[in-house]
Amino acid sequence: MEISALQKERAAYQPKLPKALQGAVKIVEGAPTKSVDNQEEIKKLFPNTYGMPLIEFVPGEENNTKRINIGVILSGGQAPGGHNVISGLFDAVKKLNSENRLYGFLMGPGGLVDHKYIEITADFIDKYRNTGGFDMIGSGRTKLEKEDQFEKGLEIIRKLDISAIVIIGGDDSNTNACVLAEYYAAKKYGVQVIGCPKTIDGDLKNDQIETSFGFDTATKTYSELIGNIERDCNSARKYWHFVKLMGRSASHIALECALQTQPNICLISEEIEAKDMTLNAVVENIAKAVAHRAEQGNNFGVVLIPEGLIEFIPAIGRLIQELNDLLAAHGADYKDLDKDAQREYILSHLSKENAATFETLPEGVARQLSLDRDPHGNVQVSLIETEKLLSEMVAAKLAKWAKEGKYNGTFAAQHHFFGYEGRCAAPSNFDADYCYALGTSAAQLVANGKTGYMAIVKNTTAKTDEWRAGGVPITMMMNMEKRNGEMKPVIRKALVELDGKPFKTFAAKRDEWAMNTEYVYPGPIQYWGPAEVCDQPTKTLVLEQE
Amino acid sequence: MEISALQKERAAYQPKLPKALQGAVKIVEGAPTKSVDNQEEIKKLFPNTYGMPLIEFVPGEENNTKRINIGVILSGGQAPGGHNVISGLFDAVKKLNSENRLYGFLMGPGGLVDHKYIEITADFIDKYRNTGGFDMIGSGRTKLEKEDQFEKGLEIIRKLDISAIVIIGGDDSNTNACVLAEYYAAKKYGVQVIGCPKTIDGDLKNDQIETSFGFDTATKTYSELIGNIERDCNSARKYWHFVKLMGRSASHIALECALQTQPNICLISEEIEAKDMTLNAVVENIAKAVAHRAEQGNNFGVVLIPEGLIEFIPAIGRLIQELNDLLAAHGADYKDLDKDAQREYILSHLSKENAATFETLPEGVARQLSLDRDPHGNVQVSLIETEKLLSEMVAAKLAKWAKEGKYNGTFAAQHHFFGYEGRCAAPSNFDADYCYALGTSAAQLVANGKTGYMAIVKNTTAKTDEWRAGGVPITMMMNMEKRNGEMKPVIRKALVELDGKPFKTFAAKRDEWAMNTEYVYPGPIQYWGPAEVCDQPTKTLVLEQE
Repeated sequence: MEISALQKERAAYQPKLPKALQGAVKIVEGAPTKSVDNQEEIKKLFPNTYGMPLIEFVPGEENNTKRINIGVILSGGQAPGGHNVISGLFDAVKKLNSENRLYGFLMGPGGLVDHKYIEITADFIDKYRNTGGFDMIGSGRTKLEKEDQFEKGLEIIRKLDISAIVIIGGDDSNTNACVLAEYYAAKKYGVQVIGCPKTIDGDLKNDQIETSFGFDTATKTYSELIGNIERDCNSARKYWHFVKLMGRSASHIALECALQTQPNICLISEEIEAKDMTLNAVVENIAKAVAHRAEQGNNFGVVLIPEGLIEFIPAIGRLIQELNDLLAAHGADYKDLDKDAQREYILSHLSKENAATFETLPEGVARQLSLDRDPHGNVQVSLIETEKLLSEMVAAKLAKWAKEGKYNGTFAAQHHFFGYEGRCAAPSNFDADYCYALGTSAAQLVANGKTGYMAIVKNTTAKTDEWRAGGVPITMMMNMEKRNGEMKPVIRKALVELDGKPFKTFAAKRDEWAMNTEYVYPGPIQYWGPAEVCDQPTKTLVLEQE
Repeated sequence: MEISALQKERAAYQPKLPKALQGAVKIVEGAPTKSVDNQEEIKKLFPNTYGMPLIEFVPGEENNTKRINIGVILSGGQAPGGHNVISGLFDAVKKLNSENRLYGFLMGPGGLVDHKYIEITADFIDKYRNTGGFDMIGSGRTKLEKEDQFEKGLEIIRKLDISAIVIIGGDDSNTNACVLAEYYAAKKYGVQVIGCPKTIDGDLKNDQIETSFGFDTATKTYSELIGNIERDCNSARKYWHFVKLMGRSASHIALECALQTQPNICLISEEIEAKDMTLNAVVENIAKAVAHRAEQGNNFGVVLIPEGLIEFIPAIGRLIQELNDLLAAHGADYKDLDKDAQREYILSHLSKENAATFETLPEGVARQLSLDRDPHGNVQVSLIETEKLLSEMVAAKLAKWAKEGKYNGTFAAQHHFFGYEGRCAAPSNFDADYCYALGTSAAQLVANGKTGYMAIVKNTTAKTDEWRAGGVPITMMMNMEKRNGEMKPVIRKALVELDGKPFKTFAAKRDEWAMNTEYVYPGPIQYWGPAEVCDQPTKTLVLEQE
């Protein structure tokens, strides 16, 4: 199997561990915890895993631990560093007792249910150290939420004499990890479940979890590309580049990339929602910046757009809601009409406000919303190419202003969407170290008999030596939220906080960035070289921890 | 002005020079040269710049040279390393005589004609050393081909007491540099013109020019992204990724990226043309690979597509030709027909062969070809999203095979287009050194009174020390070709050679890559670290020079 020069050299990288995890470990337990909200309900749903203390690891004395076998699962979308969590876990369990075994369930949580697994051995894992991707054991989106899945999993757990399952995933996967932990605890099966915080989206974080792994590497990769595009933009001086960034629910990725690259415009979904902005208002803001720059002779620029934007625009949300109801009720008498009649039909049946919103949409998007529906009959918002939608609407607005003599520039757009380009990049030094420490922590939580915990590593803006590792009860991060019409206990998703430091830092600079050209070109992730270049955490993390 | 940590540290990089360029230089002249073809015609068109000898620089003795002022121009699309050509030029001319001046004409060749320029000073240039982009002085696509442009340029050349113009550009720009050199020589204006080989496309190379600058960095950047996508593809195991790569005329970029990343499929336009393949045959080949992988349970893969593909498919070329003629002649009676009638009209008016080709096209593409035309009335091939066209046609083919019981997999596609992501990346060590050496060579060609030459650096797969620098008469690389209906003297464009080592190496492996999953993940360009990672030239260059 051929591997690249970088892979060869990078394989030798030894991730740095916090001091407390470098040798034998003992645990220090804090006071009992409670959930962030809905304490009574969460407590009732998780009688066996509620209220446990926070845990911190400190240096301890070597003592032989009993033999343990662990099963590990990668859940959900890829994030750089997953292989290093598994490496940290592997090295730590083998160090605890060389007879310990680590099993990897294949292609996500489904592997547990379907009994698909491999044993992870030293030879096998060495090929994956410090590499990106989840291809070591694969990942998948099967949700572990039903008792028959839990019982089916137990069969293979028993067969392999596994005492703990480590689930590496995002907020939903960790919520499910906790449900599984509670179930196995209630049944007294003696099987522990530990979670690890993964997501490039950055939306799994809170007072206990400083950041999720993968966010660092993914945002640095996207920022490399955005910086390259900015430099091209500033050299050719003839295009507006509309760059959509992966991440459906929160705008952390867009915000971090903006802090790194200083584009002319960056939209933050959470702000647009909070201000109840219309799509037209969003477009007008962009068009104003374009027009202002044109007055200075600068008919070029860069706009960052979070993937989930459309769903955060309240007026669009209301329109989609009504369209879903309308098409569900009248789909039949509507679908045989011709194109123009369909449009008329929709406009005449929508409420006045939603009809007005519908009318502002470019024809292609309007048709997408009124025609393409998913198997549940819902409008498929994810099919909308937001970056093209916005640039088309900006172009239309500018054309109108040109007619009115208010605009006199040229406007040509290029479109980009970055997602798959960063989810499997080789982890930065930060993510390589952070993930390895998370895996090591997970092993120690298992060795100490814990269940329903997530592995955590804190103080991550300090030197690795000074990072603090431990565990947090997953119930502590939960509240009740409506999901598919039902109230469910879930880990609260972290959206961009408009009074948080990262957003405020961005908001204080953005007018300058819009008017002037203050691009910053971060360049590609460096694994060797000056620490200033190789070992910096994200701007978001630094600002949040300041 | 804020700059990134990488920029700060990278600014200190001192590009390595070939031994011959490290100190004082003297020139060794070879035998007279002749053009690669059409010698009589080229000689007649370039009486003053034809037949000059190849030049090589060797270490010489320090001697004071006369004062010279030089003007430099960036021409055409961005390529990583342009700023280093100018840095090399600047350092060399200042070393020759600290009174020498370097002027940069702004926004491309138009800056010379319109007298827009700046003086490049030590303070100014330091900010741009080892950076990507052409933003130092901007670039543009104005073609220098008319006498009034040459005369207008002369005015500012005289005013600034400039004795030589250095034009950094691709094949067309260097052809024009030669025409300008010949004109100034014929008029005995005493103004020298020197070219530098730039293009990420890799199509400006020949026996004298081993590679054009920018190709190294751009292909490494694209390969980083393709590798990341491959790793995602191999982790999620559910998508076929169709990746289009910039470069209209030659497939060097796609070929180099394939050699670096070993995708399942890489299309090479030159091969498709040589084999007179139809679009349907291209699609069928891809679909066969998809079906074969599906049989092994692998419903995923990566396909690389050169941007210019469509125009290389002979059947499509013939169709477009006839459509252009047909729509020009009958556009009027056709344009008011409705959609279906338009299609009928076209099908009934095309020749049998072209009608058959037209019928195989997806509706959207067929409409694009028959409706959207440029101001000259021509079909706009560049609007066709080849990556989507191919994946749609593959999906249709697979659906047909599924009905016939010949295919039983799932097929879902993702699309990418990489171009702007790599044109302005910070130059790799190779491009940083190569460009600096080219700039230094250009200065020495000027100092030695040469005109109509292009700066060259050879032996570039050896250590930098052993690189050989010199100059090649531009006329030596010329032949006569038809451009816009007229025979013109031009530098022969280098397409992928089907009997060359890079293609043959690829062709020998591609079946294995298609059937198995042998992805290689090159990772991001590294500027520090092991030489194996940081200082390797492209695979294309290594194979060609073996």
